[in-house]
Formats: sequence, C-alpha cells, structure tokens
Amino acid sequence: MNSIHVSQATLRELCIRIQIGFGVPKEDASVVADCLVDANLMGLDTHGVIRLKFYMDRIEAGGNNPTPVMRTLRDGPATAVLDADNALGPVGGKAAMDLAVAKAGTVGIGAVAIRNCNHYGPAGWYARMAAAKDMIGMSFSNVLASMAPTGGAQRQVGNNPYAFAFPAGERPPVVVDGATSKSSWGKLMLCAQKNVPLPEGCYLDAQGNPTTKPADVMDGGSLLPFAAHKGYGLAVAAELLTGMLSGGALDHDIPHPYKKLDEPGANSFFMLAIKVEAFEDPDTFKARMDTYIDRIHATPPAEGVERIYLPGEMEAEAEEQRRSDGIPLAAVMAQELRDLAARAGAECDL
Amino acid sequence: MNSIHVSQATLRELCIRIQIGFGVPKEDASVVADCLVDANLMGLDTHGVIRLKFYMDRIEAGGNNPTPVMRTLRDGPATAVLDADNALGPVGGKAAMDLAVAKAGTVGIGAVAIRNCNHYGPAGWYARMAAAKDMIGMSFSNVLASMAPTGGAQRQVGNNPYAFAFPAGERPPVVVDGATSKSSWGKLMLCAQKNVPLPEGCYLDAQGNPTTKPADVMDGGSLLPFAAHKGYGLAVAAELLTGMLSGGALDHDIPHPYKKLDEPGANSFFMLAIKVEAFEDPDTFKARMDTYIDRIHATPPAEGVERIYLPGEMEAEAEEQRRSDGIPLAAVMAQELRDLAARAGAECDL
Repeated sequence: MNSIHVSQATLRELCIRIQIGFGVPKEDASVVADCLVDANLMGLDTHGVIRLKFYMDRIEAGGNNPTPVMRTLRDGPATAVLDADNALGPVGGKAAMDLAVAKAGTVGIGAVAIRNCNHYGPAGWYARMAAAKDMIGMSFSNVLASMAPTGGAQRQVGNNPYAFAFPAGERPPVVVDGATSKSSWGKLMLCAQKNVPLPEGCYLDAQGNPTTKPADVMDGGSLLPFAAHKGYGLAVAAELLTGMLSGGALDHDIPHPYKKLDEPGANSFFMLAIKVEAFEDPDTFKARMDTYIDRIHATPPAEGVERIYLPGEMEAEAEEQRRSDGIPLAAVMAQELRDLAARAGAECDL
Repeated sequence: MNSIHVSQATLRELCIRIQIGFGVPKEDASVVADCLVDANLMGLDTHGVIRLKFYMDRIEAGGNNPTPVMRTLRDGPATAVLDADNALGPVGGKAAMDLAVAKAGTVGIGAVAIRNCNHYGPAGWYARMAAAKDMIGMSFSNVLASMAPTGGAQRQVGNNPYAFAFPAGERPPVVVDGATSKSSWGKLMLCAQKNVPLPEGCYLDAQGNPTTKPADVMDGGSLLPFAAHKGYGLAVAAELLTGMLSGGALDHDIPHPYKKLDEPGANSFFMLAIKVEAFEDPDTFKARMDTYIDRIHATPPAEGVERIYLPGEMEAEAEEQRRSDGIPLAAVMAQELRDLAARAGAECDL
C-alpha cells in the first residue's frame, strides 16, 4: 500500500489528540491542527501534517513552549506588539491576526507584530483569516538566513514568506502566497534524497558559485532570491516588518529550528488586516472582485495552456476536491503519524 | 554638446515655472517638480523631467486637471478614500500619503486609497515620505493592462508598481521600489528606437508567443511578469489594493495616458504609513536598522562583484553625487525643456 486517503475530520482529530498527548492545551492543538490540515487540503503537503513530528520533537526537547503565556508589549487603537512566549507558530500567528482583525473591526485597519514565535507554516493561512471577515489580509514572517543578497556569495537574508488575501463574492478569495527565494529548502532536501541535480540558477555553493549539487548547498551554500534584486528587496521588506518592527531576532540570530530542537524559537510575524467597509461597500467590492476574476479567466491562454488561474485558485480547487475525496497520505507519512500517536499515548484510527 | 549639468535647484525652479505657465498653481507645481527632479537626482532619469512634456501636453489637451478639487469619499480614524478629481499624479499621490502619515501620527497606522488620478512616477517617492517621518511607508499604483497573467497570451494585468520604505539612523532609508514586470515599456521603446532586439524571455507577441522584436510587442503584445506567478501575484495584489479598494478603474478600463491625451486619468493609488513608535522605540529601531545594514554590507561578495547594496542604496548614492555635481541632461532633453518653457511663456535659464 503506497498511500491512504483520510478525511479532513479524521486527520484533524488525530493531530489534536497527538498534541494533547505532548501537553498542548486542546484549544491551541485545534489551531495547529487547522493550520496543518488546511495546508494538506489545499495540496500544500510540504506545509501540512508532515510538520507535526518536528513540532512535537521540539516540545519534547524543550525548545517549544506548549503552554505559552503571551504578553502584550505595546497596544494602540490600531496596532500592537506581542511576545509569543515561544508558542507554536500557528498559535502565535493566529493570536496576532485575530488581534489585527479585531482592531480593524473597530478602526478600519489593524497591524500586529509578534516576536519569539516559531515555524509559521503557510503564509496564506493567516491572510485568509482576514479575507473570511471581509477584510484584506497581509502576513509576513522572517526565517533563519538562507539566501544570498544580490551580488552576495553567502547566506545573509531569510527567504522570508509573504501573503496577501482578498475576499471575493461567489468566487474563492484571491490569495497571493510565496517565499522570496527562487527555489526552496524543501526542493533541496528532495533532490538530495533522490540524488538528482538541483534546478539551474537557483542555488550557490559555500564560495558563492552557482551549483546544481545538493551537497554543495547543504554544506554552507545559499538559496538565491527570485527575480534577483526584486526577491531580495521583498525579503528585506519582510524582515524589517517582522523581526525589526517587533524588536525580535533577525536573520542569523534566529536559531536553526531543526538542528537546535531544545532552543526557543525566535521568528517574528507581521499581520495586517484592512476592513473593506472602511473603503468601499463590501457587497460592491465582492461583486467587482467576481467580475475582475472572470475577466482574468477570459484572457486567451498561451499555446498548450488549458486555463488561466487566479493566485490561490488552484489551492481552492484542491481543497474542494480533498474535502470530498479525502487527503492522500503516503504510507511513510501515515506511519509517522501512527508512531507519533504511540509516543503521545493517543488513540490512532489511521 | 551632448549633455549639460544642471543644479537641482535650477531644474526644480524651471519645472515650477513651466507648470505655472500651463495653469498649475505654484504649490502643486512644486510637488510635481519635487517628484520629477528627485527621480533625476536618484539616477532614475526615465521617471524624471522627461515626463514633464507628457504632463503638460495632457493639461493642454484637457486630459489633466491643473486645478483639481479633491474630495474625501470616506474618512475614518485610520483610513480614507479620496477622489483626486483628475489631479496630476504626484499631487494626488502626495495628498494621499500626507493623509496616511497624519492618521498614522494619531493612531499608529494610516491607509489611504485615491482614485481618478494620473501617472504615478516612482513608487518609492511616496514611501520615502513616510520614512522621513520615522514611519514605514508602502505605496502601490495600478496602471493600464500591459502584462499577460501566468499562462495567458494577452495583456490583462497592469505591471503595477509597489514600494516599501524603512527609516534608518545614520544610513539612508531602505527603499524597495519596483514594477511587477520582468522588463519595462521604457526598455521596449528604447529598443524600438535603436532598432535592437529585446531581452529574451520578457515579452510576448499578440498571439502570446515569446518575441524579441519590439514591433511585435507594440502591435498588441504583452510584457511578462517577473518570476512568473510571483510577479503576476504581486501585480494582482497591487491592483486590488488600488483600483478595487478605491472603487476606481481596473486594468483595461484605465485610458491610455499617451494615446488619449484628452481623456481624464483613472489610476488609483494605495498609501500606507506605519508609525515605528507604535511598535518600537524609534531610536532603538533606527540603531538596529544601521546594524542590519552593516551586516548585509559585510556579506562576502560573489566573484566580480565589488560590494553589496541595500535596496535603495544606489539611488541614495546617486542623489548625493548629483546634488553636488548637478543633474546631467542630454542635449535633446534640455531642448525639450527650453521648448516647453517657450510654450509656457516661462523664463528659461538652461
């Protein structure tokens, strides 16, 4: 058996039970389960339940705090800074976006920076929370330095991710979600495992020379930003909105989350929510969004292309399909969850 | 004589006198002059005084309103929507950013959308206004559809520009400023003039096939977004923050500013200002910015690269040099300004 299909509800409940076994309160465990299982639903399996073992290993090693007491460091009518007390990434991130949304509900816009947090997961998950409330959401995280700045030979900037989400009417929200590197660490790990060359023009070795050998990159090499100085610029902007604005850690000062399982996380996030109603009647806005989406769909496709997608649309379609057909889990992934359940003393129905 | 050097003050005064001759009030003329001459100072000559003739031609043809009465359509504690009444782009854009900065001064963050405006100029000019007040600035504009969405064969999305600016201490502000296309219309015009091929992989012909022939693109072809779906995603995000949020025109509904000189402009902008002090002590923030900049500077450069630049740093250095040495103007540019001055009945000291 190569893979199984699991319903969203089954997978979510299992993730919650496992976390409770590791000492995470049920409410927080539900947040993390939503973040991970949502990624699987949308076809973003690299950001899904594959991360749960890493989260639990960090809790077991003492690196992550399963029962954080978050603190408000600064609080204004439209802004706040939070200290996540080393919470699991989705727990800290959702708290920050919830607060931004609450402030936007009152004054039209809300911006919250949070520091001392952990692995962020998919940037779009946070931005979509705002879109679900008829708000525009933006979300940024910094990550450990992994990318060479334009012209540089070594890692100095994180390949910091960003997301924007916009509510539509009948159509799914438009969600722009990406990292600032040309290719990813995930791709690197995959090529290393399979012993195949890396894509050209995406990675440097430790001396700053272009390479397609995975070992060259893992041994002190770097990712390259997308579109040269444009990706570099956005990575810097994300760093300054997160680690700089929150008073948190920057680039090389963020501990390696996998190599240093027992060290507290130090990622920072920035969440922005903009209430549509402060600018435009929400029904008008959403009707115009649908028209805009239809216009883009109507663009004649290039030869060999079947149809034109809006940002986030492929993920919305994957979600619909996986909600009805279940989420495919590779045999090795299913076994990892069974093992995690055993470690947690949790019932496992996979 | 191929080019002359003109002081910033001389060029600025000339731009103001020319505009006054075309009916622009002195205060607005100063704003436009600052925007254009600042671009020249920073070495961004494609966005500098080369645009003045186009602005004045549009006023003369009745397309631009030299004496706009801007209206506030919505107004909240942290947000507003303005109608620019077809003002010159920098006049409307500065009014929107000034209002965003004023709101951020009171509640920590301010966001202003403005519609029915005109050619925006350099995105970074607006974002830097916030940075000069110890705020983080963001600025977006939509433009006429010029770019094919990912997989598309025809123009449907503007190559909408964006900017972020962050105040530093001793160092110049970090300014991320770009358009969402891989190459520009300016590059296209230049290659057409010189009869040289376009860069590979940046343009499509009217049937959606890659081309390097300028005529193919001008005859119904398209620009391509940078980094494929990443540039496309950011272009869509910029469109939705501007034309959609302001209730203004979108993509193909924006009249061609050069071809339709007598039609009112319909560009929208979105300006965001975030007061650093709402998040972090500004002196601490700026000192950390300087350290961050120094760390990036210290990245070992790749072979053949002299030094690593922060986003916006090359422009800051050009500004310093041109403030002391003067701004170089090609002979043909100087003559265009003399001709404009003659049309305006303005004294010309070039």
